[in-house]
Amino acid sequence: MAGIKVHGSPFSTAAARVLATLYEKEVEFEFVPVDMRAGEHKKEAFLSINPFGQVPGFEHGDLKLFESRAITKYVANEYAGKGTDLVFGDSKKKAIIGVWMEVEAHQFDPVASKLVWELAAKPAYGMGDTDKAVVEENEAKLVKVLDVYESRLAESKYLGCESFTLVDLHHLPCINYLMGTEIKKLFDSRPHVSAWIADITSRPAWSKVVAMQKRQ
Amino acid sequence: MAGIKVHGSPFSTAAARVLATLYEKEVEFEFVPVDMRAGEHKKEAFLSINPFGQVPGFEHGDLKLFESRAITKYVANEYAGKGTDLVFGDSKKKAIIGVWMEVEAHQFDPVASKLVWELAAKPAYGMGDTDKAVVEENEAKLVKVLDVYESRLAESKYLGCESFTLVDLHHLPCINYLMGTEIKKLFDSRPHVSAWIADITSRPAWSKVVAMQKRQ
Ligand SMILES: N[C@@H](CCC(=O)N[C@@H](CS)C(=O)NCC(=O)O)C(=O)O
Ligand SMILES: N[C@@H](CCC(=O)N[C@@H](CS)C(=O)NCC(=O)O)C(=O)O
Repeated sequence: MAGIKVHGSPFSTAAARVLATLYEKEVEFEFVPVDMRAGEHKKEAFLSINPFGQVPGFEHGDLKLFESRAITKYVANEYAGKGTDLVFGDSKKKAIIGVWMEVEAHQFDPVASKLVWELAAKPAYGMGDTDKAVVEENEAKLVKVLDVYESRLAESKYLGCESFTLVDLHHLPCINYLMGTEIKKLFDSRPHVSAWIADITSRPAWSKVVAMQKRQ
Repeated sequence: MAGIKVHGSPFSTAAARVLATLYEKEVEFEFVPVDMRAGEHKKEAFLSINPFGQVPGFEHGDLKLFESRAITKYVANEYAGKGTDLVFGDSKKKAIIGVWMEVEAHQFDPVASKLVWELAAKPAYGMGDTDKAVVEENEAKLVKVLDVYESRLAESKYLGCESFTLVDLHHLPCINYLMGTEIKKLFDSRPHVSAWIADITSRPAWSKVVAMQKRQ
């Protein structure tokens, strides 16, 4: 089967999730930049991969996928024998990992994404003033999520289980942005959360994604 | 292993997702009502199942789960040989089903949930006036999602593949509420979406969830 192509920008949190997974799995791929300022993600060529016009898009031979977490799960399963094991366990362990996978998607990401937008993206790209009310509302929500994480990480080395999995990986892109903002204090003040972040952000695969961001 | 318990309210869209799955799988369970008006979901007993204090909560012997989509996936896999097959396919087919599973979670649900809240929950429970600006914003977003669904359903009988899967099932609770609101027109005006809704809402397993809502 022809090789893997990832369409997107390494600055996109969703695309970065996929890039980190491919580096963890040591799977070769071609990165195809999408010029979002020129609106390339809303043009026919890209829409034929993702009808919602959002990066990343993904191709593996004639298989076209989108939605970052669907792509990471596909890669983790398809290359189960290569690189870092990112999904595993018996049915009960899988179920618990599944719970924390959904927690990232439904409790953490909606809140973290809004904070990334207001505190990192808007200032970096000159896209208007930070909305303080949105920051305040989502900071309060993030505090509640991080309190649950702090308890969870006191009893489990990683969020899903005792090993690093897709659950932890899915958090990396937003956390990386937020560590460069005032939100860092919420992480730093929680010892288990803070040790977990130091651990997952220092993984070599993640450093490769950060290096791609610096090269752009 | 001791039996299954579902904690929640059949009116909760997230709990209804789990109930529909159990009925599809023909798996016996005990339903444990959580009195949300009395704030029972924020008390210690329930928080020991779901630290985020949201229904549903789920127990299967000593396994405790939360997040509706993690529970439905567990039940669908654990009881693969019973009732309706809700997950299947080779790795490529699973990957495509995975894409549409994420579409429900990230494109449909955030928008549909806000409309359910404004147009169905607030009026039913006297929880304040419908916020017209929120309705307008999310109605516009839903139109875009439904346009993609209309194209998808023109080429595939169900959203994930040619058979009914968890992808379709996960949509049922919000769709059911929205069919009782002005949003119905957005579904009715799209022939493939409208045929899909007629099909999935008439499934006997879903009727059992609706019957539970009527009994409360
Ligand atoms: N749920 C999607 C989110 C994708 C997404 O929101 N991508 C952003 C960049 S991080 C994008 O393309 N935004 C442009 C737009 O929505 O028009 C995923 O996980 O892949
Ligand atoms: N992502 C969660 C959402 C659960 C959820 O939002 N449940 C609502 C009822 S549908 C709830 O318990 N709300 C009360 C609260 O958030 O305090 C899931 O799918 O289980």
